[in-house]
This record gives sequence, structure tokens and C-alpha cells, in this order.
Amino acid sequence: MRLLITGGAGFIGARLARTLLARGQLHGQTIEAIVLADQFPAPADLTADPRITVQTGPLLAHCQALAHQAFDGVFHLASAVSGECEADFDLGLRSNLDSTRALLDALRARTEGGAKPTRLVFSSSVAVFGPDEAVPMPDVVADDTLPTPQTSYGMHKHICEHLVADYTRKGYIDGRSARLMTVTVRPGKPNGAASSFFSGIIREPLAGEPSVCPVSPEVSHPVSSPRATVEGLIALYECTREAYGGRTALNLPALNVTVQEMLDALERVAGPAVRARVTFERNETIAGIVARWPKAATARRAQHLGLQAEASFDDIIRQYIDDTRAGPHATQALKGMTP
Amino acid sequence: MRLLITGGAGFIGARLARTLLARGQLHGQTIEAIVLADQFPAPADLTADPRITVQTGPLLAHCQALAHQAFDGVFHLASAVSGECEADFDLGLRSNLDSTRALLDALRARTEGGAKPTRLVFSSSVAVFGPDEAVPMPDVVADDTLPTPQTSYGMHKHICEHLVADYTRKGYIDGRSARLMTVTVRPGKPNGAASSFFSGIIREPLAGEPSVCPVSPEVSHPVSSPRATVEGLIALYECTREAYGGRTALNLPALNVTVQEMLDALERVAGPAVRARVTFERNETIAGIVARWPKAATARRAQHLGLQAEASFDDIIRQYIDDTRAGPHATQALKGMTP
Repeated sequence: MRLLITGGAGFIGARLARTLLARGQLHGQTIEAIVLADQFPAPADLTADPRITVQTGPLLAHCQALAHQAFDGVFHLASAVSGECEADFDLGLRSNLDSTRALLDALRARTEGGAKPTRLVFSSSVAVFGPDEAVPMPDVVADDTLPTPQTSYGMHKHICEHLVADYTRKGYIDGRSARLMTVTVRPGKPNGAASSFFSGIIREPLAGEPSVCPVSPEVSHPVSSPRATVEGLIALYECTREAYGGRTALNLPALNVTVQEMLDALERVAGPAVRARVTFERNETIAGIVARWPKAATARRAQHLGLQAEASFDDIIRQYIDDTRAGPHATQALKGMTP
Repeated sequence: MRLLITGGAGFIGARLARTLLARGQLHGQTIEAIVLADQFPAPADLTADPRITVQTGPLLAHCQALAHQAFDGVFHLASAVSGECEADFDLGLRSNLDSTRALLDALRARTEGGAKPTRLVFSSSVAVFGPDEAVPMPDVVADDTLPTPQTSYGMHKHICEHLVADYTRKGYIDGRSARLMTVTVRPGKPNGAASSFFSGIIREPLAGEPSVCPVSPEVSHPVSSPRATVEGLIALYECTREAYGGRTALNLPALNVTVQEMLDALERVAGPAVRARVTFERNETIAGIVARWPKAATARRAQHLGLQAEASFDDIIRQYIDDTRAGPHATQALKGMTP
């Protein structure tokens, strides 16, 4: 089978590609080729695999050309992120709405030409949820909580959920939408995202660096490991439509944790010296943004598919340590851990 | 002040224009000009008013040109309807999504050029609601019921609600979205819409014609009169943002009635001979579509704005009779009424 991963050079996209290459099959079919479409070059370990082809460039241009290629399945992960969309409204509309529509129309053109509807997994986000003045957000967001997005990014994701649902209803694609929770621990450097600290307060101390947490220890948030996130995307691809149920997007499982619980886990896994590298200094801007995010999430439909969040944040930290030690995608040193 | 009504030659658009011309002012400002943009020509009584200008042609082309015109306010009613969107997927996307985006971008261009954000009322629809397998629809839909549209038309309307909300959040427009209930009694002829009978079973017998009701008498549905619908649109324009509350779309008030109650009202208002012109013959296709529509709606936020549905369906029938007798938009004869 031949697969397309948009955003295939990104953190989750590349991890999904590695997982698929290691499995060798998806939904009972041998994976012969994976096309990674991304505006950035793909990691070298991926391009070294003969099954991988890379298409580098803006997604919108790709998508318009994709009608002439046949894919058995698509993972649509490419997206401008929250901060980019707030800074450049047109970029956000183009990258997230126009590209998705062009991709869906390319797949529709194939179906209208007689092909079987292409199976597509769309990565939506917990960012579809937010508190609107008229509609207070519950502390715990569920599959069927009303999304009232408070960012352009969240709005784009929610609109694309509806496009995927309607193209599916019409039989143009076989689409499924998964709302990703905040993925942690991400490798790399701190970035400008308000959620950056959810990885930074673990990653930096493990690398021997200090880390400043901008919110109070009791802040709670639904998170997911990279591994569980990729497992969720694959499970959504492999399940029957009956098991997916309807056409509305679903939440992937979350581990609902407080910052305090994250740091307690860090101390248990890596020792008090590592934990001591995290200090608190409130950043009103970040704290204000985070205060408007869901405190927790449930994932009833994903659980029916057999998906589970990690049992504890300790497991998520251990997963990050194992990944960092094992490479090929190791990017961080580990320093000063007790045992 | 200078106003734009897209879909201004349609039934609700023309009625809104007449109401505004008769009032002479909106939100305390004298109405100097109203532009009616529509693909169809506007009724003669409207074009006879010197304050009216008509722009005939496809909305998408209009909207791209609208950036060069200044409007104090916009009522955005233009839309391809449900049946059209199901029959021609591209037409629906172009008429409903692309046009709305072009309109919003034209207004945004003005704001970015230094103008005050244009106030915009968007007519969404109760069609945003529907039963998805994963998310059962409650019998009574409220402002905060999760929309899971089951038609392209409903999906377009819901996506546009989110676009209006996000352009408003960014300060590009001052947008408000009203979900219109099924408007009855509409003048004119029966059409192919599944909802056509909600007007037909009143309009045809009043005109001396037989009418066949395709669903059973106990079918319940949220309806609204043309007058209450137009009042709702104007109230949304005139209210403060605080009174509107948040940025999420709201339901306009509905009178929740069964077909039996509609016919009982017809008999009370027009006599048993008129009522006797309605017979029942189940149409499985129409009955199946209607079974997936909301049975009733509430409108808490609209009620806070002082809006009310009619107290009874008798009032809605009397309104239709008065309108038909009074014209200028009289299109139907009234025949054989008792008194």
C-alpha cells in the first residue's frame, strides 16, 4: 500500500512514519511506499529508507497536485500552529483551511474518477475547546463538548473536522478526525508556544539545564505521550467505520495531570537533583492563556477502540528518556540523573 | 447609514429591506441607502424606493468587489439552499463558504485600512443540528447544543458561524450569528425542499387548493414567522456585544408545533372547509429526512434580548393572511375562508 503523511517531517509525522516503517504493515496491508509532504526537509533516518519519498514545499501546492497520485491512505497532520495563525491571519487560513480543502478535493476527484474512497485520518486538536462568554467550557472536555474555539488555530481545526465529516458523508473519502491532546515530552528547544513549558519542565532538567515554570503547580491539563498519540492515529486508521461511530471528531485519550504531579514524577524517575532544576516564576501572559485551556479531557469513544492514556506521568518521562537514549532521533543529552 | 443585504431579493431579504425602509432608521441612525446583492432581480416595490440600489450577479463576484465600498452594516443572508448543496457539492462550497470568506475578507480589508469594524449579522440555520451516530441529538436543541450537521448546507452554515466568530475575535468585523428556525408561512409555490410542506399545508388550502401532507400529524418542529425572523435579525444588529454575549451563534425563538396543532389552528382561523383541503399521504423520503430534524428548539439568549416567538400558530396564520391581503408582495389568492 501507498501512504501519504502531510506534515511528515514534523515531530509527530516523523514518529508516525518511523512507527509505520517498523510495523511494515497497516490495516493488514504491506506498506510499500510512504510519501512525506512537508515544507521542511525530512530527518535523515527516514530518507535513508527506500520506502520513503519526500515532497518538500508548501502544502497548498502539493495538494493541488495530489489528485494525480493514488494513495491508499492519508494521515493529514500538516498545519500552521497556534502562534503562527495568531500572528499571520492569512497564513493560517491558507495553511490550514485552503490546504485541507485542496487535499480533500484532490481525494474527491479520485473518487469521482472511480477510485475507492481514500481513508484519511485528520489530526485535530484539544485547541478546538475554549471558554466563550456565552457558553462556559466545562473543566473536563468530552467527545461531545461544544467546541467554541478561542484561537484561529482551534477554529481552523474545528472547521476541518466538519469538512472531513461532510466529504465522508458524501462518500468522497473515508475520513476520521482525532483531537490530539498536548503532546509531551517533545524533544528540541523551548519555543514561543504557550504550551512549551509542558515539555520544557521535564526536558531541560533532564538535560542538566534550568527550567522556569510560568504557571502555578496546581495547573491541570490533558496531555499525551508521543507514543500514545501515534498509536491513536494508527488505531483510527485501522478501525471500522462502525467502531469509529458516526462522523464527529473524537478526543484521543489524555492523562490529566497537574504541574505538581509532573514534577513529582520527575523526582521519582530522575531524582531530586534533576527536579531541583525547575523553579517557578509566574508569567501573566502565559498563565492567562493556559487558564483558558481545558483542565482535563475524557475520551470515551477512543477507549471503546481500545486506546488508553499512559497510567502515570512517570511512564511518559521514562518513554522520553528511552527515546533520547535510543535515537535515531535522539536530540537531547541526559545529565545528572540519579541512577 | 449605508447597509448591504446579501440575498436581498430573497423572501427574508426583501422582507428585511421593506421593514428597514419603513422604519427609516437602524440602531438610531437614519438609513440613507440599502444595497441588495442577489443573483436574482429584486421585487419592483423595493427598486422603486430611491434608497435602494440593486447589484445582480453571483455573490462571490460581488464580495470580491465589496472591499471598495463602505457599509455601516451588513446582513449576510445569501446562501445556496439545502437541496442545491446536496445536488451540486461545488456550487454549495462556492456559494456558501467561498462567498462568505470573500465577504469577510472584504470587510477585513476595510478595517485594516483604518475603518471601524463593520457590524454584520449572519443568518445561520437550525439545519446546523442533526443526529450523528456518535452524538445523539436531543429532541430540544438549545443555543449550546453540539451541532453535528447532516447536510452540506448545515455544515456550511456552521463553518460560517465559526468564521464570523473568529473574524470578530480578531476585531476585523463586529459579527453576530442567528440560527433561523424553519420560516412559515412562505408565499409562492411548493418547491422541492423537504420542508416545503410546513408552508404548503397552510398556504395551499387558504388559496383554495388541495395540499398533501407527507408526514404524520404528530411530527413536531421549531418554526418561526417571517415577521419574527426579521425582528430577530434586526435585534441582533441593534444589541450591544455584551447583550449578544460571547461570539457563539444563538438560536432565534421558535414556536414548537406539531403538524396537528398547525392544522387545528388553520381550522380555528379559516374554518373547517379550508382545513379539509389537507390530506395525509406519507412520503417515506420526506418523512425520513424530517425524522432527523430537531423536534423543538429553545432560545435562551435571544429571549434575553427581548425576542419572543409568536404565542400560537393561529397568530402566524393570521400574519400570513394579513400580508397576503395587504401586499405589495401579495402573491396568493385567499379562497373559501369561513368569515
